[in-house]
Amino acid sequence: MVIIMTTEATAENIKAVIESIQSVGLTAQIMEGASQKIVGVIGDKRLMACLAIDAMDGVEQSVEISKSYKLASREFHPASSIIDVDGVKIGGGNIVVMAGPCAVESREQLFESAKIVKAAGAQFLRGGAYKPRTSPYSFQGLEDEGLRYLAEARDLTGLKIVTEVTEVEAVETVSRYADMLQVGARNMQNFRLLKEVGRGSKPILLKRGLAATLDEWLNAAEYIMSEGNQNVVLCERGIRTYETYTRNTLDMSAIAAVKHLSHLPIIVDPSHGTGKWRMVKPMAYAAIAAGADGIMVEVHPNPAKALSDGPQSLTPENYNEVMNGVFKLAKFMREEKLAIDTL
Amino acid sequence: MVIIMTTEATAENIKAVIESIQSVGLTAQIMEGASQKIVGVIGDKRLMACLAIDAMDGVEQSVEISKSYKLASREFHPASSIIDVDGVKIGGGNIVVMAGPCAVESREQLFESAKIVKAAGAQFLRGGAYKPRTSPYSFQGLEDEGLRYLAEARDLTGLKIVTEVTEVEAVETVSRYADMLQVGARNMQNFRLLKEVGRGSKPILLKRGLAATLDEWLNAAEYIMSEGNQNVVLCERGIRTYETYTRNTLDMSAIAAVKHLSHLPIIVDPSHGTGKWRMVKPMAYAAIAAGADGIMVEVHPNPAKALSDGPQSLTPENYNEVMNGVFKLAKFMREEKLAIDTL
Amino acid sequence: MVIIMTTEATAENIKAVIESIQSVGLTAQIMEGASQKIVGVIGDKRLMACLAIDAMDGVEQSVEISKSYKLASREFHPASSIIDVDGVKIGGGNIVVMAGPCAVESREQLFESAKIVKAAGAQFLRGGAYKPRTSPYSFQGLEDEGLRYLAEARDLTGLKIVTEVTEVEAVETVSRYADMLQVGARNMQNFRLLKEVGRGSKPILLKRGLAATLDEWLNAAEYIMSEGNQNVVLCERGIRTYETYTRNTLDMSAIAAVKHLSHLPIIVDPSHGTGKWRMVKPMAYAAIAAGADGIMVEVHPNPAKALSDGPQSLTPENYNEVMNGVFKLAKFMREEKLAIDTL
Amino acid sequence: MVIIMTTEATAENIKAVIESIQSVGLTAQIMEGASQKIVGVIGDKRLMACLAIDAMDGVEQSVEISKSYKLASREFHPASSIIDVDGVKIGGGNIVVMAGPCAVESREQLFESAKIVKAAGAQFLRGGAYKPRTSPYSFQGLEDEGLRYLAEARDLTGLKIVTEVTEVEAVETVSRYADMLQVGARNMQNFRLLKEVGRGSKPILLKRGLAATLDEWLNAAEYIMSEGNQNVVLCERGIRTYETYTRNTLDMSAIAAVKHLSHLPIIVDPSHGTGKWRMVKPMAYAAIAAGADGIMVEVHPNPAKALSDGPQSLTPENYNEVMNGVFKLAKFMREEKLAIDTL
Repeated sequence: MVIIMTTEATAENIKAVIESIQSVGLTAQIMEGASQKIVGVIGDKRLMACLAIDAMDGVEQSVEISKSYKLASREFHPASSIIDVDGVKIGGGNIVVMAGPCAVESREQLFESAKIVKAAGAQFLRGGAYKPRTSPYSFQGLEDEGLRYLAEARDLTGLKIVTEVTEVEAVETVSRYADMLQVGARNMQNFRLLKEVGRGSKPILLKRGLAATLDEWLNAAEYIMSEGNQNVVLCERGIRTYETYTRNTLDMSAIAAVKHLSHLPIIVDPSHGTGKWRMVKPMAYAAIAAGADGIMVEVHPNPAKALSDGPQSLTPENYNEVMNGVFKLAKFMREEKLAIDTL
Repeated sequence: MVIIMTTEATAENIKAVIESIQSVGLTAQIMEGASQKIVGVIGDKRLMACLAIDAMDGVEQSVEISKSYKLASREFHPASSIIDVDGVKIGGGNIVVMAGPCAVESREQLFESAKIVKAAGAQFLRGGAYKPRTSPYSFQGLEDEGLRYLAEARDLTGLKIVTEVTEVEAVETVSRYADMLQVGARNMQNFRLLKEVGRGSKPILLKRGLAATLDEWLNAAEYIMSEGNQNVVLCERGIRTYETYTRNTLDMSAIAAVKHLSHLPIIVDPSHGTGKWRMVKPMAYAAIAAGADGIMVEVHPNPAKALSDGPQSLTPENYNEVMNGVFKLAKFMREEKLAIDTL
Repeated sequence: MVIIMTTEATAENIKAVIESIQSVGLTAQIMEGASQKIVGVIGDKRLMACLAIDAMDGVEQSVEISKSYKLASREFHPASSIIDVDGVKIGGGNIVVMAGPCAVESREQLFESAKIVKAAGAQFLRGGAYKPRTSPYSFQGLEDEGLRYLAEARDLTGLKIVTEVTEVEAVETVSRYADMLQVGARNMQNFRLLKEVGRGSKPILLKRGLAATLDEWLNAAEYIMSEGNQNVVLCERGIRTYETYTRNTLDMSAIAAVKHLSHLPIIVDPSHGTGKWRMVKPMAYAAIAAGADGIMVEVHPNPAKALSDGPQSLTPENYNEVMNGVFKLAKFMREEKLAIDTL
Repeated sequence: MVIIMTTEATAENIKAVIESIQSVGLTAQIMEGASQKIVGVIGDKRLMACLAIDAMDGVEQSVEISKSYKLASREFHPASSIIDVDGVKIGGGNIVVMAGPCAVESREQLFESAKIVKAAGAQFLRGGAYKPRTSPYSFQGLEDEGLRYLAEARDLTGLKIVTEVTEVEAVETVSRYADMLQVGARNMQNFRLLKEVGRGSKPILLKRGLAATLDEWLNAAEYIMSEGNQNVVLCERGIRTYETYTRNTLDMSAIAAVKHLSHLPIIVDPSHGTGKWRMVKPMAYAAIAAGADGIMVEVHPNPAKALSDGPQSLTPENYNEVMNGVFKLAKFMREEKLAIDTL
């Protein structure tokens, strides 16, 4: 942390700041120029969380310069992590595809989706049983019934199941049916939920919050990891910006940032990221080229009849085309040694 | 909803779109120009939530033009609501002040805060017992112990208690101690929590999400109200923008927007809204002048020792000055008939 | 500037960084902790602009901690500036009102507007002769003809004229007709234009860019001031955020920030800031309460016939009501010693 | 345009709205539901620009549903445009690379850069002679001297020259030296400049404004094209969002959006888009995979000594690696028929 003093700060102000820093076991260093004085604090960021230096006399402001997460950082764990989901490996050069409908709507719709997803070579079936929706009057998911259909679809196809858990009380139930638990964008800072899934052993797919910084996202991963569960996969799904043509703005550079800052795998969701099915293909290709460890896409047997997210769902034909391109491209990147794993 | 067809859309495409609209019980109208065809849909927005028109052939995109919330809308309830919190009225020209430390840190700190808060004329004591923090290594709150201190402080001072509830399981406990439950910014779209507090009878202070649109915010209120609890007060606390000088960007125009779109009272939190104690006074004055029904501010006996949000907490002296100005200004606005209640 | 070294940075890397800093005449200081090394740079920010430290080996990133503007800063000029526009004073507790139509459309429309504006007590007539418009097919302004009408309106009413200059070539002409030149949001970083108006003597109204940070805005003022012209008044007019209900998000906290960081006066434009005439009154009141030195509002004899910005223009009746409230409120703030000039 | 009436709107209000629409030669259609009335307007968007419907009685708001640009739209010109820059073709499956230093600093630096750029297979040398800088105290470019060096570098290497023009007065001079004129992000809505370059014949590289919507960007292209110059290439260079880890947020989905909405070629600038040299490679690959017609990258013989944008400049070694990957990837996409030209 660097503390910038006001130009009028007195020697006593500076002394008080330094004593405050030392009182929590950190060390301080003063740097003085002609017109500016700053105090640097070195040491464990976790101790700094107890300091409220900005409120002290003579302080203009403090600037954080170090990360508050540790377990999720590449500095702590230099090798890229590979997360094993019941035999399917995510990270380390393996490209994973998670596909399926936004919501589980019926046994028929899910099974039909599962067959399409499986045929094109995906490893995971996605589908929401509990749906967080902006309006209370929108379809809210089949809940437990949906979970049972997902488990049946796994038995039928061998696909792994990833599905969202939206509340602490449901973690146990969802864990019984799913192979991987998704923490959705709206719950990325539902810290109680993060801790709860952190105490379990199921791998977690942690979506980036709608307006979450990279730092907040990696701290959310830290919440899970600090409870014991190290099996976290990140998922970039678009952030909220001023642009309204797309549903969100897919932050493709988050792939590169995460590969630099963290050892955790990262996949990309171009369906939510754009909100438009037309854009799924180019953004899926871009994600793979940029070094993503996989993609998550929405596919529906009949998007126009979807109860949720129809506009961004692929038809079976579009989906097959995207999968074909994604796997060809991933193979090419790997064989030509263009694939990017760390920066 | 207005559906914009592509220039190549065929008569059959349009027919299919209209049939789809009619299938959910809505009516459609076609408008045709020289180079553009659009289809208008009139009727209950809740039925539209089941349509996935964008995924149909010949459709360029659909544009929502009506609101999805109803109970929270001023159209449904033209008179401004007054929320009664155990005798203290919020809305309808009454100015409410909720003040106190960010977090309950100890019995002494809270009691000292409560006395300061009370003396200057506030009606509510705020203070977090459960603290949502970006880092798992930051102080997480005293939890149940904090709730007990809050209840003791109420007995001591007669102040009403407002405190945050961050999870479904804690609603019952927090309801036992608090007079008003706060749903924080990070939980504004924790829909399970919204429903749970909607089933209770305690008034709710619903903070705006970090990147929530006005529409999403009012829909969050609708989640609570549709479960039965009509006692919702909104709280603007700053939104996330590109500007980093302030912690958030306080959206002062949200006051006016809410007064137009909804009948619910709205207060403003200039402490979180700016992140800087220096800015609390001007923003508190601005909120009152713009028509807010009150403010929520952080005050701490010794901000430099605060375990959370010290930089934005007022000292007792600053707090007294702000309160003096706020009450004078509110009285002036009311007496001069400048106060704004609806637009 | 603080330079954060990577954990793998060698002693040689640090040596090279320090030599680079010293080579431009600055001094460096090393701070070393158990797991982190940082280098602090103290001195003239203008010299730092020549350093590209981030590109050096062993450097994770550099963080700016000082301001790059000087003439515009309150540190350089502690007393609040009062800008004199041909006898009308802006700043120092004087509340200025600039009002008029978005665009000069005809002699009649302008004169009618001028009389309305004058009658309610404004000091400035605003009106665009050169209009920057998103689409090339929108009305682009009457240009020189518009300037002549503005000058006639001044003769008629005694109001001062403020109008936008959008290009270097027009500075001389506009300066001949106007009392104050406006640099619009879209030109806030048109550096050539800033320099050109900086070489003149006419006071400048510098609107904040659509996505400009406070730092960029004050640097834009610095461009003008560093050429000699110290007569700069800032105008907050809303920034671009994700919220679409309002045309822009009026950043009310910019008033307080500018009062802290700079000595320049700041006014607020609630018309562009919200894009909705209904919101002009509450936001005008808020601006005055927060300490703004004035407001700029759009008023039109018949907004529904306006060639530009009708939706946000006040009718004469609304305008009179806003003016009445603004002047009463300003008087009250001053007399009760609640007015905020510096923080 | 769709006009949403308030629930209280009278028959007279609606009549007045319709008459207003008809008065500019457009046709209106009413749609009436149980609780809502809307009026649709079909016809030339350019005529709508003269309407200020939102300011009329009984109007809640109007919503634009059609594009205001025409020449730049794919509807007007269904085939993808290929822009010929003195023999080098941009668009239509050709991948173009523009590379060079941020700023022309000296003859030696430029020539060395040009040789590096040429050797790796780029077609264009970029380099700023006029530099728009946030601070007036930063290096502002060599201006005309820089232009002469660029022309010499062309003679030496055969590379085409693309360089920024920041003001109307310089268009003629820059056109004499450069093969393609760049309009920078900060000038994207400098409408006078757009018109000026639109009257010339040199192809234009139009960078996206820092906070420009796709609609505003394509309207900026329309400004150029409506003056006669149809040779416009778009360049995505990152937009401003709340995320601060990267300098900007590269909006990769803009490639797909532009390919759908417009016939103009689009290239991507991952150097400005991220602000970090480490991220240039993954983002360059992503751009090509997503269907971009090329990339623009900053390369410097010695980034640590660069007078501008050192942190985001590639070293010669990094640059060669990126070029190798980009050309291999582009070839693969084309040969495997994965390349995306229109959606």
